[in-house]
Formats: sequence, structure tokens, C-alpha cells
Amino acid sequence: MTTDAPRERHSELDDDPAFALHRGGKLEVRSSVEVTDHAGLSLAYTPGVARVCSAIAETSELVDTYTWKSNVVAVVTDGSAVLGLGNIGPEASLPVMEGKALLFKQFGGVDSVPIALTCNDTDEIVETVARMAPSFGGINLEDISAPRCFEIEARLRERLDIPVFHDDQHGTAIVTVAALRNAARLTGRTLGDLRAVVSGAGAAGVAVTKMLIDGGIGDIAVADSKGIIYSGREGLNPVKAELAEISNKAGLQGSIEAALEGADVFIGLSAGEVPESVVATMASDAIIFAMANPNPEVHPDVAHSYASVVATGRSDFPNQINNVLAFPGVFRGALDVRATDITENMKLAAADAIADLVGDDLAADYVIPSTFDERVVPAVSAAVAAQARKDGVARL
Amino acid sequence: MTTDAPRERHSELDDDPAFALHRGGKLEVRSSVEVTDHAGLSLAYTPGVARVCSAIAETSELVDTYTWKSNVVAVVTDGSAVLGLGNIGPEASLPVMEGKALLFKQFGGVDSVPIALTCNDTDEIVETVARMAPSFGGINLEDISAPRCFEIEARLRERLDIPVFHDDQHGTAIVTVAALRNAARLTGRTLGDLRAVVSGAGAAGVAVTKMLIDGGIGDIAVADSKGIIYSGREGLNPVKAELAEISNKAGLQGSIEAALEGADVFIGLSAGEVPESVVATMASDAIIFAMANPNPEVHPDVAHSYASVVATGRSDFPNQINNVLAFPGVFRGALDVRATDITENMKLAAADAIADLVGDDLAADYVIPSTFDERVVPAVSAAVAAQARKDGVARL
Repeated sequence: MTTDAPRERHSELDDDPAFALHRGGKLEVRSSVEVTDHAGLSLAYTPGVARVCSAIAETSELVDTYTWKSNVVAVVTDGSAVLGLGNIGPEASLPVMEGKALLFKQFGGVDSVPIALTCNDTDEIVETVARMAPSFGGINLEDISAPRCFEIEARLRERLDIPVFHDDQHGTAIVTVAALRNAARLTGRTLGDLRAVVSGAGAAGVAVTKMLIDGGIGDIAVADSKGIIYSGREGLNPVKAELAEISNKAGLQGSIEAALEGADVFIGLSAGEVPESVVATMASDAIIFAMANPNPEVHPDVAHSYASVVATGRSDFPNQINNVLAFPGVFRGALDVRATDITENMKLAAADAIADLVGDDLAADYVIPSTFDERVVPAVSAAVAAQARKDGVARL
Repeated sequence: MTTDAPRERHSELDDDPAFALHRGGKLEVRSSVEVTDHAGLSLAYTPGVARVCSAIAETSELVDTYTWKSNVVAVVTDGSAVLGLGNIGPEASLPVMEGKALLFKQFGGVDSVPIALTCNDTDEIVETVARMAPSFGGINLEDISAPRCFEIEARLRERLDIPVFHDDQHGTAIVTVAALRNAARLTGRTLGDLRAVVSGAGAAGVAVTKMLIDGGIGDIAVADSKGIIYSGREGLNPVKAELAEISNKAGLQGSIEAALEGADVFIGLSAGEVPESVVATMASDAIIFAMANPNPEVHPDVAHSYASVVATGRSDFPNQINNVLAFPGVFRGALDVRATDITENMKLAAADAIADLVGDDLAADYVIPSTFDERVVPAVSAAVAAQARKDGVARL
């Protein structure tokens, strides 16, 4: 019916298997109902559907039982901080959002829909998402740049009665905390025994730091491109100023290199390389999580010379810190109990559940379960659902 | 994992098969790709997906080839004019939107997603839909009340480079025009020979009238709750004032009953009943389309005593005027050629394609194909795609 000209024009791209796999997109909408005759049509559509609509109009909670709302999540982005690519805009971000939706469904049984927005303004994004919220059981914010991502999430959590979760922050934080808890256990310590240095004060850096503080880390300092963040440093935006208040008890100043001297933990969440000479100054039994992709801040071969535990964001090394261990189970658990929020306790419960799965198999090359470990989602969702009930945010 | 209490509480509703069918909703998102190992993950998600994102960032049209955008339509409503139920709000409208999505997929192979909005303001709806448009290949507006629906559609068509189509207007108009063209042919006339009276000046009434004027109807007058709309009538909103200018060449005034005396065609698009005594005053070989659901403005048993051709909106009488004959094929055709708009000519082409399928089988009880006639979507989509090319709005 259509000419093939424009498709052919790009066909050489399909020599790359990533392009071949993406041709036509990765998602489709299907119906659980097939309509083959007038009787079926009169139930799934008019006139029968009117009775279902009327019932929901009268008793609003019925929307959760008689529509797909309670199992469908909007994956919302403005395309401003996509992977390592930066601000590539809404259309170009769609393959990542579709990938997220694929993982949501395959790992968590959660339906989700990419919503890529043309607007970058905080007020506009908040307003737009709030307006479409009746259609969804949850909002997963994705690849929205810092510091806007913090305010957008906070305002939407305040305004909506469905879970709102910025995965770049909390997905990363949950898995990092899980891995660090196990790394501490392996080396005979607890989080409270550790002094950590975080490289990167973007969405992930801020969230990891806050969650480690909530989880009882001994001390933690964060470095951005200007060095260690400390209380009183000039020109801090409000998010970094808050970070300065709650982190860096030791009052470190100066470069990340200086802070790493004698530190127990390095957490890399930026692309900034750390030289071997600096790694060599860390404390004994050091823990190095070098999560930049595709090039870790410290190459694992180097890191292993100085550290007891090494993790990366890559699948071709042991101990992959991958968000997919968290977000499908977090939303599965939250949706299962129709949670109105995802609380800090629910995130910590998710981290504990992931860490606990490692159990007695704990080893230097196994502080975190594999991405494809089928126990993960059931464990995380059960922990998140139970904690939602304890925190009084479960509606079911 | 969850308690069943709230579900059980409502289980008596499921004695109604419409509720039983709606339990859990009617839609799901599936992926065409399964990720079972790290190699698959590295193509469908990071790092492979980054190459696809980068290519789209560089050459924006690639979004149509390598994401699902070019096959997914947003079904957008504010829940203000749902079926005969009126303004029941976004949540309660979702079963209808899911039904629409089901029909889009089953009849047209079009993926679609319900987007029910909390806002009713024209500016806000336009802005919200425009902001999310990068995610979609088309916008189907649904159950938005008149007169806002006209301006919302017009502004979105102007602003976006994807098809925007308010189905309550144009779906109804396309199928009505198709049926009326065949009814005229059956009685040895053309549209130009007919004088029609439309009951209802809402979304459907306005669109049917305009399309019949475009299609060459002899004369057509529209009645709202205050009687026939004519040029100079007091208190007309801008849409009705425009209608007054282009319709009712005869300058009729007064009640719909008076206008029906000697009229060739009655088109009912409101719930207002027309008494038998009035039907009896219509011209010989009258054509009666009484489309109110569930109670036609003139019951078919009555209508048949005075009219040569009778159609309704119901599936249990012959000649069902059902939008599902139009919207799946219209969007299929528009998406197939990546149309940037759905022009008036494309709508007329769709109507002609539907009418032509009846062919030599034309009879008083067969002026329009069945809802389940499998020839309809291929014929409509081919006609719409061809007309899009002629009108210069096809990108493929």
C-alpha cells in the first residue's frame, strides 16, 4: 500500500543489530478482549461500556478494577539527560523509553507507555504530567536533567495520589545501597563503618548520597566538577546546598583526589576518570563502584589491585549495578497494593530485599544478584508492598 | 501477595457480563522484543539503544522507522461528553477510551493509548496535547464536548504535523455521508436532489452538516434545542453562527417539526424524539437516519411506514451507522503514508470508499456495510492514503 523508498534509504543502518532490532519500534498495545460480533461489541463498547463508566463515575475506586489504570505507568521524559548523550530531545529519547517499557513488562508485568514531552520548563512538566495522571497508575520519570528533576518529582509526589518515581535517582540508589551493604558485610563491616566519596552530583549522585545517609553510612562526601561539596561553598544551587548540609560531616574541601585519600568507598556516577595513583591512596579493604558507562571511572583491572570489592555498570564484569534490579519490582509492589506514594522506607526495603538475596553466596564477585535472577522482582515487590502497608500509603 | 478484600466487595457487579469483561481493563502493552540475556539487553537497552537515539537526534525522520511512534495514536479525552452520559470526568471515561483502543487495534492494526485529562479548558487541552505529541503518530480526540471540541481540533491541526481527528465529528460524518449517498442512489437521486434536516448541533451534527454541504447536498438545516438555526438568530455561538451562514439556504425558521414538512432526509444526532405525526409530513421516498442510542429519535418500526430507507445507530436493526467503519481505516491510511493532516478530501474519500463497497447489493436494508465487513478497512485506508498523496500531505 505504501512505497518503500524512505525505508530503503536507511537500510544500511540495519547492518547494526541494534538498529535491526529497533525497526518498527519495540512496543505494541494489545487487547485482552477480542470483538468478533455485535454481542461482543455491545459489551466491550457501546452500549455495555456505559454501565461500567457510570459505575466509576459513582464510585471512583472502581477505575482500578475495571480499567487498566492500576497496572499502567507513564514513562515520562523531556529528553534532556538521555544516557550519556545529554539533551537530545523527546523524539530521540523514545528508543530508551520503549526499552524501559519493555523491561517494565518483561521483569515486572507492568504495562507502561512512553510519554516524551516537548517542554523543559519545570512548571510546564509538572502541570502536563498532573493533567494526564488520571490515565495512569504511576509515573516513572526518566532522563530529566538535574536539578529540575528533583523539584519536578517532589511537586508531583505532593500533588498526585499515585506513585511518582524518578528512576535515574532512586533506581540507581536502591541498587547501589544493596551492593554496598553486601560489600561492607563481606569485609566485616557495616555501612556505619564506612567513609565514602561520590563522584557526580547529578540525579544519581544526589539520590545515592541521601539514601546512604538514610541507611546510616559513616560519612559521605560528594564531588562535582568543582570539587568536594561543603557547607559554605560559593555558588551552590539549592539541591547542592542541602547536600552540603547533610553530607560531609568531616568538612572536607578541595579536590576529589584529596578526599579519596584514606576513603573506604568510591562511588563513580560521572564520567570523570580517577587515576591509578589516586586509587592507590584509598584505605585497605577499599570498595570501588565505578558505574560510568561505557568507560568506568576506574577500570576494574586497575581497581582490583587496590580494592576488596569492585562493581561497575557493565554487564561484562561481575557485580553489575543495574536499575533493572529495582524499578520493575518497586512499581510491581507499589501497584499491587495501590500505593499512593513510594516512601523512603519503601526504597530502603527494596534495597534490603535485593541485598538479602545474595545470602550465603556472598563473595567479592557476587555482592549483587544478576539482572536475570528471577527471585529479584518477587522479593522486591513483596518488600515494597509490605512497607507501603506499614507506612500507611497502601490502598489495598 | 495482596488481599482480595476490595475486589471481593464489588464482585456482584460481575454478574453483568459487561463488568466481567472489563475486570482488569481491556488493554496491555507488549514488546515485540524479548530480552533473555545480557546480549539482548545490550541491544534493546544500553549501550546499543544509544546508537539508535543518536541517529534519531541527527536525522529526526528516523523516529518513524526505529520507534513505535508512527503506529501509535493518543486517544485523548477530558471526559466531558462521554456517550450519552455527559461530563463524567476522565477516570470514568477510561472504559470507552480503552474500547476505542481495542477497536483501533483489532480493525486497523493501529496501536493506541488512552489519555484522559483533568483539564477542561481549551487552551490547557491544546497545550497539553501539543506537549506530548512527540510520542505519537496521531491524535484521536474523543468525547470532548461542543463547542470546545471544534477549536481544540482546529488549533491542534494547525500546530502539529501529525493527523488530528475528532472522531465524534468526522467518524460519524464519514459514515453518515456514505450511507446517505447510497440511500439517494437507491431512490434514484443524488445528494444534490435532497433537502435534509439535522437534529442536534453538537460535534456530530455540525460535522455531518458541513461534510454533506461539501458533498453537495441540495439543502440542509440544523436544529438545536431552540429550533432551526438560521442566519441572524439571536445568541448563536461562533460555531452555530458559521453553520447558519453555510446551511439552510431556504432560510427556514421555527421548530424542527415545521422544517421536516416536505423534507427528504431526517438525520437524528440528539436524543430528541420525533412524533409519528411529524414523520408523516416528510416527502415521499423519505430517508430517516435516527442515530440516538439506545433510543432512536424515530423507532424503526414507525419510520418504515413513511420512509424508503431507515438507518440507526443500533446493531440490532439493519443499516447501523457505526464510527468503527471509519476511524480504524482513516488512521491506518493516514499512518501508512505518514500524513501530516487529515484533509476534508481524505474524509470524503473515506466516505466514498465505504459507500462503494455496497455496490450492486444495494437495498433498503443495506445502504452501508456491516461493522464486521473485512473489506472496509483496506478500502478506506487505501482511499485515504491515495487522497493524502493527492493533497500533498503524505510524507511517504
